Amino acid sequence: MKLQDLTVKQFLEKTAGNEPVPGGGSVSALNGAISSSLVQMLANLTIGRKNYTDVEERMKKNAGRFEEFRMHFLNDIDRDSEAYNLVFEAFKLPKETDEEKAYRNQNIQEATKIAALVPMEIAERAFGMLDLIVETTRKGNKNAITDGCVAMMTCRTAVLGALLNVRINLGGLKDAGFVQKLTDACNRIEKETEVKEKELTDWVKTQL
Amino acid sequence: MKLQDLTVKQFLEKTAGNEPVPGGGSVSALNGAISSSLVQMLANLTIGRKNYTDVEERMKKNAGRFEEFRMHFLNDIDRDSEAYNLVFEAFKLPKETDEEKAYRNQNIQEATKIAALVPMEIAERAFGMLDLIVETTRKGNKNAITDGCVAMMTCRTAVLGALLNVRINLGGLKDAGFVQKLTDACNRIEKETEVKEKELTDWVKTQL
Repeated sequence: MKLQDLTVKQFLEKTAGNEPVPGGGSVSALNGAISSSLVQMLANLTIGRKNYTDVEERMKKNAGRFEEFRMHFLNDIDRDSEAYNLVFEAFKLPKETDEEKAYRNQNIQEATKIAALVPMEIAERAFGMLDLIVETTRKGNKNAITDGCVAMMTCRTAVLGALLNVRINLGGLKDAGFVQKLTDACNRIEKETEVKEKELTDWVKTQL
Repeated sequence: MKLQDLTVKQFLEKTAGNEPVPGGGSVSALNGAISSSLVQMLANLTIGRKNYTDVEERMKKNAGRFEEFRMHFLNDIDRDSEAYNLVFEAFKLPKETDEEKAYRNQNIQEATKIAALVPMEIAERAFGMLDLIVETTRKGNKNAITDGCVAMMTCRTAVLGALLNVRINLGGLKDAGFVQKLTDACNRIEKETEVKEKELTDWVKTQL
């Protein structure tokens, strides 16, 4: 059964338990899904309102994009947990002989790369949603402005939480080029996300 | 049907729709529930591990407290949406005669106070969880340190998101004493939350 098909209550019971998955990676993807839903609502609450006819077409387009984002993020909830399991399985491989050790190490390295790349993709996806959230919140229905702001905060968690899961996996990798490339991407995305979130939340506060 | 009994997918479909609830207030409560679950997992992954016997009792106690927090936050998801609906119903009251107008205005004021007090309670609940998250993350299983950090970020959204919903409701209230009291509480909690979150996330980054 897919994690997205558990009830909210069940999903959180499963999270709270003594298994490492679903953990922070899946929760980051969930935050992306929450964010896209909330800002889609804001777009929907703008469409068809008389004071917002000038942004109507744009809001329709954005609503459609947020819907797509949601579908991706919902699948990412499972993908992140599956990637973690790959690493877990690799660690369980036999390590008696030198050959077994070499095979196991290679498997761990490969699985860990995937476990870094999946949250990297989640972080980049969420990062790619930030400007759309800003636009929708600034131009959308003023009555739902706080929903846009909460969407921004949950998107920040999606980005930064996923990046933490990239970084912790990079710690176990020997491919220095791979590690450097992803570390650079992490640093850039992290910084820009904090700036974009602060700009929007500061602005929203001036509107309340 | 309670919102917590919808599947994750259904809850988000409902959020994304063109009704204002569930919105940012319920999502803030959901973030509190997510946060408590994730940090409970971290406590659970610490209990029974040989390198963490000195914090074992503390982790058991914390795990129990996070479980209680989760139950409260799950109910808050519905409570916030219900509070919003009270305001919505009050606005629909008749306003033909002076008597009707006065009755409607009084109802709007009372419902709006509730719609401010419910997220205030959610914000205070989440705020009350911050120090426990810090302790559990700093002393708990190092392998799950990023989960503690993601729990901190989602708890920040629970606090700040709920406070936005307090503030937007305060804008419609005439009771200046009530407004001042809650505004002061908002300002204090908001500031401390940002500080606590930054401290922990900065520290976690030094541990990766």
